[in-house]
Amino acid sequence: MKFNKTLDKIKTYEAGKPIELVVREFGIEPDQVVKLASNENPLGTSPKVAEAIRANADKAHLYPDDSMFELKASLSRRFGVPEESLIIGAGSDQILEFISRAKLNEESSVLMSRVTFAMYSIYALQQGARILRTEDYRHRPDEFIPMMQAHRPDVVFLCTPNNPTGDATSREDLFAIIEAADPETLVVVDGAYMEYAAAKDPAYRIDPAEILRYPNAVYLGTFSKAYGLGGMRVGYGIARPEIIQALMKLRPPFNITTLSLAAAIAANEDEAFVQKSLQIHRQELPRYEAYARERGFEYIESYTNFITWLFDEERNSSEIADALLRRGVIVRDLASYGMNALRITIGTPEQNDRLFSAMDEVLG
Amino acid sequence: MKFNKTLDKIKTYEAGKPIELVVREFGIEPDQVVKLASNENPLGTSPKVAEAIRANADKAHLYPDDSMFELKASLSRRFGVPEESLIIGAGSDQILEFISRAKLNEESSVLMSRVTFAMYSIYALQQGARILRTEDYRHRPDEFIPMMQAHRPDVVFLCTPNNPTGDATSREDLFAIIEAADPETLVVVDGAYMEYAAAKDPAYRIDPAEILRYPNAVYLGTFSKAYGLGGMRVGYGIARPEIIQALMKLRPPFNITTLSLAAAIAANEDEAFVQKSLQIHRQELPRYEAYARERGFEYIESYTNFITWLFDEERNSSEIADALLRRGVIVRDLASYGMNALRITIGTPEQNDRLFSAMDEVLG
Repeated sequence: MKFNKTLDKIKTYEAGKPIELVVREFGIEPDQVVKLASNENPLGTSPKVAEAIRANADKAHLYPDDSMFELKASLSRRFGVPEESLIIGAGSDQILEFISRAKLNEESSVLMSRVTFAMYSIYALQQGARILRTEDYRHRPDEFIPMMQAHRPDVVFLCTPNNPTGDATSREDLFAIIEAADPETLVVVDGAYMEYAAAKDPAYRIDPAEILRYPNAVYLGTFSKAYGLGGMRVGYGIARPEIIQALMKLRPPFNITTLSLAAAIAANEDEAFVQKSLQIHRQELPRYEAYARERGFEYIESYTNFITWLFDEERNSSEIADALLRRGVIVRDLASYGMNALRITIGTPEQNDRLFSAMDEVLG
Repeated sequence: MKFNKTLDKIKTYEAGKPIELVVREFGIEPDQVVKLASNENPLGTSPKVAEAIRANADKAHLYPDDSMFELKASLSRRFGVPEESLIIGAGSDQILEFISRAKLNEESSVLMSRVTFAMYSIYALQQGARILRTEDYRHRPDEFIPMMQAHRPDVVFLCTPNNPTGDATSREDLFAIIEAADPETLVVVDGAYMEYAAAKDPAYRIDPAEILRYPNAVYLGTFSKAYGLGGMRVGYGIARPEIIQALMKLRPPFNITTLSLAAAIAANEDEAFVQKSLQIHRQELPRYEAYARERGFEYIESYTNFITWLFDEERNSSEIADALLRRGVIVRDLASYGMNALRITIGTPEQNDRLFSAMDEVLG
């Protein structure tokens, strides 16, 4: 059977069996596994969120409120943006999908950093668009602006802080890039990890409402990281109503589950949990920097809840990741991004102890 | 800002405020509202599902198992189909979206019944495809087959039982249509309400595994109706691996939430709950048929968990729906489908009592 020819260029992603089962084959019980691979909140689920979920557990048969009345009102208050400037997605991922489907076709191009969030190129390829990348993984105006002028991309993706590298783009550089964009170029500012950068350095803090200054930009945020809802798939987009209305045309009904709505509403009001998450992160991140210095390898200064360790040719990130896995510690190898590097979520003190002692064994 | 021109033909759907808030304006408290509009399971959430949700409430921060290992194994056992013939979607809706995006473009056409599930045409329009419809809302081979031969549509949608009408297509008619399809036409058999038809009459029962006889057909099922998970957004598609692999190219990662996966796994093993749902339905449906006969209006024989009441020109479905709403009873008016009709979910005995007494007041 024939399918649209854009599909020919896409590989079918074959998810392997759950990593917990792989680890079990090495004789390690699931409760002994330390997972520092997916940037999940090490504090777990906020007790207030867990309570909201339990209180709604017997409402699984009821369709969610598709107007998302209460969540939109809560986000509107938090960010000081009007509700018509908000769209809610099944993770900010889904809003990336809406953006690609709204703006891109086989004549389009998109511009992004050399190493950045993988879904930008995946959704762009689904539309048959051409992918342009800068040389540096950092978002440098002296790379982005000339490429924007030369290629007039339909969408530019700016991931700050950047995933999977952990660096961030300064306010100055970010706004310079946005302001240089053609009015027909949609600039996406993906702030999935923004809470960590904002807490670290005001020069890197983007207030989501600031995006409304631009008629051709959209800000994306998520509940998956600092708010601890990775499993619930709730993200949001903020932009002028003209853009939101176009994206809303592609939003399927009931795209947020009944329990995810309840969880996000509870999480959005639980600022104390976020502050606690940021605090433990601030306390633990320096241990990863110190460990790298002690062991003589580089790292990228982190504005996120993970750190990226860079290895020279004497060490191989894939081998290290595999050796850690056999010790029940799961991290993200960045070999598939063309980097000899590991991305490691900053965990709880105990999880980090486990990581360091496993690393000691592996490095010898 | 310009967007893809296919968006020009799509209206932005403006979800109103939650109907519970509307009813409150009429002085009715939310716990007094009877909602028979969305075909949610009147028995509520299965206690085993609610227990699974509560047991996983503190795992909201963890990304779901993206291989859906356990749910796929459970569905594979239930239907006797290999796992490579399964795809899981955020509701069967999302699989409809994958199908449209995989098969349709601005040169395509799709064929469906005159009155059928609204998302078929919405997703087709998002791709810019042309919509062809039969004259009858019933799926008649003598309409479908000549239109398939004349137009060679890229996708044919067969909704059995049909929503929002409630009729079903016999096995004989359904397979006649599938077998007449061009090998390049993808035939979608949407069995969202199949459990009700299968329990009512074996001549209307399609076993999902039967779809694997055809290289160009896909069966869709859902946990939203008989399994009581409308709010959790879990559906499935069954087809030959060639089709599944194409659709999987468009599946976003983590499309099922952590709690939805846990809920679906529990629901899939809780056949007793489904049987109880079917039993109460079997007991209550005849009351709706008797009420219509007593009051002198027609109905469509129902193979679903709802019934469609048809009115003649002396009565107006929109006025009746509004009068019921003011009495705290919510039903679905089918005026927007071009029918002077109401679609009413078969509720619990108490809910149905409320509906009948409100109808008595409205009809006088």
